[in-house]
Amino acid sequence: MNGQDPWRAQQERTAHVPEATPADLENVDAILFSTPTRFGGATSQIRAYIDTLGGLWGTGALANKTFSAMTSAQNPHGGQETTLQTLYVMAMHWGAILTPPGYTDPVIFASGGNPYGASITANGEPLSEADKASIRHQVRRQIEITRKLKAQ
Amino acid sequence: MNGQDPWRAQQERTAHVPEATPADLENVDAILFSTPTRFGGATSQIRAYIDTLGGLWGTGALANKTFSAMTSAQNPHGGQETTLQTLYVMAMHWGAILTPPGYTDPVIFASGGNPYGASITANGEPLSEADKASIRHQVRRQIEITRKLKAQ
Amino acid sequence: MNGQDPWRAQQERTAHVPEATPADLENVDAILFSTPTRFGGATSQIRAYIDTLGGLWGTGALANKTFSAMTSAQNPHGGQETTLQTLYVMAMHWGAILTPPGYTDPVIFASGGNPYGASITANGEPLSEADKASIRHQVRRQIEITRKLKAQ
Amino acid sequence: MNGQDPWRAQQERTAHVPEATPADLENVDAILFSTPTRFGGATSQIRAYIDTLGGLWGTGALANKTFSAMTSAQNPHGGQETTLQTLYVMAMHWGAILTPPGYTDPVIFASGGNPYGASITANGEPLSEADKASIRHQVRRQIEITRKLKAQ
Repeated sequence: MNGQDPWRAQQERTAHVPEATPADLENVDAILFSTPTRFGGATSQIRAYIDTLGGLWGTGALANKTFSAMTSAQNPHGGQETTLQTLYVMAMHWGAILTPPGYTDPVIFASGGNPYGASITANGEPLSEADKASIRHQVRRQIEITRKLKAQ
Repeated sequence: MNGQDPWRAQQERTAHVPEATPADLENVDAILFSTPTRFGGATSQIRAYIDTLGGLWGTGALANKTFSAMTSAQNPHGGQETTLQTLYVMAMHWGAILTPPGYTDPVIFASGGNPYGASITANGEPLSEADKASIRHQVRRQIEITRKLKAQ
Repeated sequence: MNGQDPWRAQQERTAHVPEATPADLENVDAILFSTPTRFGGATSQIRAYIDTLGGLWGTGALANKTFSAMTSAQNPHGGQETTLQTLYVMAMHWGAILTPPGYTDPVIFASGGNPYGASITANGEPLSEADKASIRHQVRRQIEITRKLKAQ
Repeated sequence: MNGQDPWRAQQERTAHVPEATPADLENVDAILFSTPTRFGGATSQIRAYIDTLGGLWGTGALANKTFSAMTSAQNPHGGQETTLQTLYVMAMHWGAILTPPGYTDPVIFASGGNPYGASITANGEPLSEADKASIRHQVRRQIEITRKLKAQ
């Protein structure tokens, strides 16, 4: 196995997933981005997608949706906080309503205590139960907040 | 008039305003902080107040409130964006729901286009009409979002 | 003239400029990045280049170089500070020695007072003399600091 | 022992340390700040000190010094990155030359891999050997860079 093999395997596993287009964000109420870190920022692939959103932004269609973010890094302190911040800054430009998890559930503490969003130290191991619980909490809370905002 | 005079005048003008305590944040649904910048961060006075909030935070009473922020600086690019970011990072620790204005109204563009919050270049002049409109928009939008969240 | 025309003209004007490769950063002592903002971050094009630097980073060849950054945005407060911060975060991962200009010369104040780096409000007008002076100052200072670091 | 006891003990242990004044930063070539996090920012005590530096800043005496920062938090991802960023933003206002450690030594990886500065998860245990090595490396590197800058 060489270094490219996991990449290729992942590519095959996800080959059936349609590539995101700006239209995917148009008629939704909640948006969650997850990206590994690249030197403390999001990957250029997700930034390339973000750069296609200018037209949608111009129509106001990105505003007033909820937004939260998740990330991973190879080192515990290798961008797990800063990468999330760069995504929240982006969402502020959209007029998003930001729903980072804070410490709104004990699972946040159990999974490393990142108040900005679920973040994983990517060491080749499967996600821990605490990490999974933290991810589920962040998503459920965002959905709950979104439902309240859209109920009226 | 020496440099201390405006400071003293402001102190006298605000002498009747009670000093904030942690209890002031306990039973509210929306929180908005406004602070001039000090080297790209909030003033130590407001940070001193923030440092008293640990107990309230520990009870979970700071969570799930909406939060937005405003600022001012002497230079157009002298911390008007970064100061707001430091306050949003803080609010993420609380489990706040962040409501920066984005570009959700034309008044944002007219007042300098700061999507993170109203921000003023403090040059001794009174607030412009555009700045006032931008401040009003940010507050109204936060209240509207807060009402929806608390309606149920 | 439609919206694509300036883009195409710029592409033709710069067609002779060789595309950057990781090798371009290997044997240099000072690095300066300049990018327009995209929602408070760098363009995906420059992030795509950054993503090719992992190998060079792994050899340690990116460390101990000086780094500074410049940017532009359509609005005065539309990411002119935050975009620069995302680039400095990136450079910290490299082990760079950061040389943002601060307020080390009066030209900084004259051009908007951005201590993080020269930043322009892109409104279709040519660069002002103050902006040009600010850019020159940032570059000269970085070179001066770099020379001292490499003199021994 | 109640919760105030460690605080009091620390106060007694440090009673002989003179309180910092702006003059302490005037004739030095290298500055390193270390602060525990408070909701992703520095403590109000150190921010209060920072707020006294306006006069010194106005004379230009804070410029062209090297600067780096360290921090601690109760949770692994509870502000160990963002707190350092707020201090670097501040130092950029001073015209400082920033020397975060990056990954310039294997000890960085061994102590959690924070490229922005040494950071500790404060759990009541003494500093680990890896943490001490990481702190020593950051300081030595800053001194080495400072020496080169001031040699001429």
